[in-house]
Amino acid sequence: MENWLTKRANLTPDRMAIRFGETTLTFADMRNRVLQIAGQIAKHVDDNARIALITPNNLTGYLMILAIQQLDKTVVLLNRRLSPREMAFQLADAAITTVLQDDAFVGELANVHQLNFSAILATEAEPITPVATFELDKVTSIMYTSGTTGNPKGVMQTFGNHFYSAVGSALNLGLTPNDVWLAAVPIFHISGLSIMMRSLIYGMGVVLYERFDVERINQELLTGQATTISVVPVMLKQLLAQLPVGAVYHERFRTMLLGGGPTDLTTLEKATAAGIEIVQSYGMTETASQVIALDASSATRKLGSAGKPLFPVEVRVQKVNDADKVGRIQIKSPTLAVGYLNRPDKYAEAFVDGWFDTGDMGWLDDEGFLYVEGREGDMISSGGENVFPDEIESVYGEADAIAQMSVVGIPDDRWGAVPVAFVMFKDEQTMDFEALRNFGRDRLAHYKVPVRFFETETFPRTASGKIQRHKLRDQLTTAHEIK
Amino acid sequence: MENWLTKRANLTPDRMAIRFGETTLTFADMRNRVLQIAGQIAKHVDDNARIALITPNNLTGYLMILAIQQLDKTVVLLNRRLSPREMAFQLADAAITTVLQDDAFVGELANVHQLNFSAILATEAEPITPVATFELDKVTSIMYTSGTTGNPKGVMQTFGNHFYSAVGSALNLGLTPNDVWLAAVPIFHISGLSIMMRSLIYGMGVVLYERFDVERINQELLTGQATTISVVPVMLKQLLAQLPVGAVYHERFRTMLLGGGPTDLTTLEKATAAGIEIVQSYGMTETASQVIALDASSATRKLGSAGKPLFPVEVRVQKVNDADKVGRIQIKSPTLAVGYLNRPDKYAEAFVDGWFDTGDMGWLDDEGFLYVEGREGDMISSGGENVFPDEIESVYGEADAIAQMSVVGIPDDRWGAVPVAFVMFKDEQTMDFEALRNFGRDRLAHYKVPVRFFETETFPRTASGKIQRHKLRDQLTTAHEIK
Repeated sequence: MENWLTKRANLTPDRMAIRFGETTLTFADMRNRVLQIAGQIAKHVDDNARIALITPNNLTGYLMILAIQQLDKTVVLLNRRLSPREMAFQLADAAITTVLQDDAFVGELANVHQLNFSAILATEAEPITPVATFELDKVTSIMYTSGTTGNPKGVMQTFGNHFYSAVGSALNLGLTPNDVWLAAVPIFHISGLSIMMRSLIYGMGVVLYERFDVERINQELLTGQATTISVVPVMLKQLLAQLPVGAVYHERFRTMLLGGGPTDLTTLEKATAAGIEIVQSYGMTETASQVIALDASSATRKLGSAGKPLFPVEVRVQKVNDADKVGRIQIKSPTLAVGYLNRPDKYAEAFVDGWFDTGDMGWLDDEGFLYVEGREGDMISSGGENVFPDEIESVYGEADAIAQMSVVGIPDDRWGAVPVAFVMFKDEQTMDFEALRNFGRDRLAHYKVPVRFFETETFPRTASGKIQRHKLRDQLTTAHEIK
Repeated sequence: MENWLTKRANLTPDRMAIRFGETTLTFADMRNRVLQIAGQIAKHVDDNARIALITPNNLTGYLMILAIQQLDKTVVLLNRRLSPREMAFQLADAAITTVLQDDAFVGELANVHQLNFSAILATEAEPITPVATFELDKVTSIMYTSGTTGNPKGVMQTFGNHFYSAVGSALNLGLTPNDVWLAAVPIFHISGLSIMMRSLIYGMGVVLYERFDVERINQELLTGQATTISVVPVMLKQLLAQLPVGAVYHERFRTMLLGGGPTDLTTLEKATAAGIEIVQSYGMTETASQVIALDASSATRKLGSAGKPLFPVEVRVQKVNDADKVGRIQIKSPTLAVGYLNRPDKYAEAFVDGWFDTGDMGWLDDEGFLYVEGREGDMISSGGENVFPDEIESVYGEADAIAQMSVVGIPDDRWGAVPVAFVMFKDEQTMDFEALRNFGRDRLAHYKVPVRFFETETFPRTASGKIQRHKLRDQLTTAHEIK
């Protein structure tokens, strides 16, 4: 397919492409800015460079991602909240030579060339020829996801993955030439990157926010400056909580796309009263964003459901016994990533008869609506971030005093869920709350650090010795909390 | 991809799928009716059957096409206006064993099993398992197109062709859950079949008309019962001519998709006054409908242009000399048919460095708008039908009295263009107007028969001996007309 940016600058040169703060760029403007930046990056890197990006949601970071595409290079998107240890692992795993970083990022990274955005923008551009085509099977983006076991894996997403994702979304949500999507979710996540790709494919404007500024975002939606927004439950609740009484979103506002788990009836009713059509959705990094969605019209009748598979997507639930209600949720989709970087074995393991096993458990009702019952390994969805207990447990396993730890998620009004830990010490307790928390904060992104710790002397286990997390959760009210 | 009909009946069971006359079916209804008919067809045909369909635009014909898809069979769509000679050629070329035909079709066809719709619908259905997936590379439809030389060729269209065509159209025209497309163009043409495929892919309603009933169709659009309609210029002019003074189409009406050549400023202005957004388009059977489109917003500024390539499409103009303005229009698109049935050589000849040569001549302006200057071989677009002079000339070449004939199109208020012929007789004139017309009517669809004949003793030719049709056209006012 022809280079999407070239194509958009040709098809819809005068349409708004991006607004960030006071700056608005049309597609023609954006193409010019991106090619300029691509020429500036080219001055610093050679053909063999492997580029990673560290940026919050800002205009320069946005344009950098597009510029790396124009240079026919894959961009590795790093979560800027990673600990140095996590960052080092991902940089080494992806064999990164050059890190393009927002000036606000101050970490020193070993064995890579770090380039601040301001330094790049101050460079005299060299002339470049943008890549002619976006081949659908080319890997354009890599982002790391922590699995239920072991190290994070680099998910390799192709242009084809992003294309089919955008098409599947349009076939579900519709599409108008006036659509503008507000992106306050991170562009280094698939939730944000998929908005950028939709923008190129649809010719759609994006309003980019660096922080989730509840008041200003409510103003955007009340005045119809954006027609669509992606949120996680904590964002939805904040928007509703701060809405003036009786206020209703503008009629141009079409859809609030909610990821990160289903919402409750009270929230749904509040949203409806405020003229907000919520489309709940289910997806992951490996599926290049949403693959299952629940339309507002079915939300009350199918409360708690994730919805139905998008048009290009198929879902099935594999049960161990026919009599079981719940089974493993498996997906077929042209949006499925082509692999985990350096770990073809791990990716192959996730497939059963050509179906991708999500690691989630659930069931389908007789109308084909999917209900997600729980996550294998009990992944915790916290404020839009996926937190995997196994990863936290493996880090704490390195503490001398700790014999064993098990992490579960508990509901949280603000973040949806947060991790808490059950700890078994080797001898008597030798770490207090402060020590436990600091041990985690030195090694993990802060949102992964358990917020409470409980002491235990034994763990409930299955016959095969696996810890039963759901039984641990039952002990929360009785267990001894470490202060 | 999962079977589109199954998918739609699951995703949007209660949405309107089709309305014809007094009958309206939802997607769930339609799936049930189609599976019933598939079971009835299965009773009559074995696994090796090759099926062709002869039908006007009616509900049963519509459901038959979908039923053949459900049986995992390719449907060969025959133009019901073909002469027996043309019909016989296409049936033999496609190795058809079974023809499903509307009861109104009375022709007797050799070497095939003819089944009237009423006979099929009276059959007790046998249980069938609908095909599980619509594989994107599977040929689902074949329709014949007359080329500039030789016999008509069976264009093989895959599910992937139809999918990308629908996606390209949606990325250009937008898409809403309330869209309803009025189909008065034939479903045995790509113009009509593409509406059917969009309906499955989008979950969009279709209003089907057997005849172009100007008054009723105007009523549909004035009352917003349909949001989109495909027309050729003659239809557009009829709609405008019969609109009551000051009448404006309903605000739900979004787009009039105009094929078959650009329109004039007067018509555009009349349309705008009536609230009609005209999107002019360019495409052909080989590209699975429109690949170039001109938005209403550019129509006046770019009068006479066919527009810009849709998002998944690329266009180039290959010139013989750099200094030329006009060159050959060539296309790259995922909607390009996978071949001509039995004639891989012919299809391969149409490609230059991976680009499909349309046979049309044109040029691109500095903003990338395409202007089609003329058709190689001077194809005549008459009332939505493509008429190829070479085919007519080759048929008349069999008349004993005729030494040579050359056909050109002339403008016609009703049909856009009609064919007229220049005839050189072997000795003195031995055929009058009646004889010439009847010779054609016995062998050609009536719309292909020249409406006027002119006698000539010589033909203007190029150095290489090719007849120069544009010079012939200059002789129209002076040539001797055969009465």
